[in-house]
Amino acid sequence: MRIVGIDPGLQVCGYACLEIGGKEKSPTLHSYGDGALIEAGVCRTSSQLPLEAKLNQIAEDIKSLLKKFSPDIVAVEELYSHYAHPKTAILMGHARGVILQSCAEAAIELKSFSATRIKKSITGNGRASKPQMQRTIQSLLSLPALPEPDDVADAIAVSLCCANEAGSVLVTNN
Amino acid sequence: MRIVGIDPGLQVCGYACLEIGGKEKSPTLHSYGDGALIEAGVCRTSSQLPLEAKLNQIAEDIKSLLKKFSPDIVAVEELYSHYAHPKTAILMGHARGVILQSCAEAAIELKSFSATRIKKSITGNGRASKPQMQRTIQSLLSLPALPEPDDVADAIAVSLCCANEAGSVLVTNN
Repeated sequence: MRIVGIDPGLQVCGYACLEIGGKEKSPTLHSYGDGALIEAGVCRTSSQLPLEAKLNQIAEDIKSLLKKFSPDIVAVEELYSHYAHPKTAILMGHARGVILQSCAEAAIELKSFSATRIKKSITGNGRASKPQMQRTIQSLLSLPALPEPDDVADAIAVSLCCANEAGSVLVTNN
Repeated sequence: MRIVGIDPGLQVCGYACLEIGGKEKSPTLHSYGDGALIEAGVCRTSSQLPLEAKLNQIAEDIKSLLKKFSPDIVAVEELYSHYAHPKTAILMGHARGVILQSCAEAAIELKSFSATRIKKSITGNGRASKPQMQRTIQSLLSLPALPEPDDVADAIAVSLCCANEAGSVLVTNN
């Protein structure tokens, strides 16, 4: 099973593609199977562009990723509804809407996960700090360095959470 | 010049198409020229659908409208950033993002207007009530009844505001 995780954003979207081949069931991530992190990175929009052009760039980038990776599932982080800046949350909603619509147009199954659920799934603690999440991801996937920037770490995290909840057994190719 | 006004929403999007033919400049809507309200209505999504399917339905409906009317400009109402329910505002943002992206994909010029600016443009009062807006729109366009539902009235209002700010002189074919 192939999972693409996306951390939605207007300026930067993180993405990660996990390939999960194991058929064994495991209650925790810490059991490894024959999974692998295929790729992770970011898509950026120019800060000079008007909002609608940024959204169109995001749609094009997401469609390219879906075509490249042909995922069975796309996992997307939910937005906080208690942002200090509601205007920012609404703008983030614009970007997330375009991402979800791109997945629906491509008829790819979509799963949403709250930040708390993701943190709990990866570290066992729904209130884990960013550094704690990064260290756990690095350890789980035997990455040579901490996953950076945050957008990449968040995208890997949501894809791992999705794999975890699907009962898959993960491993890395690194 | 053809203007399509859109009132964004996740369950219901209002739309209106204005054809503005006058070349005269006028500081107020109350000068009439050779404009006309071509059509106004709503696009609805089923409440049973998951979020991403609703967004895809909205994208399809908006693309159909853009194809049908071939507007020069699409005018879209801005979202309030002070909603009592931030979660609702974020979901509205999802729908508005898809609408804006559909316009950008079709390379149609987009203009955003705040509710206050729209109300001021139509009635002279940025805090006009909904019934006041409806009565003014009915009068301006000589509609046989009050424009309803709210989504239709709001879509006509944003298209009139856009025409007004472009200095066009409006008239109705009713």
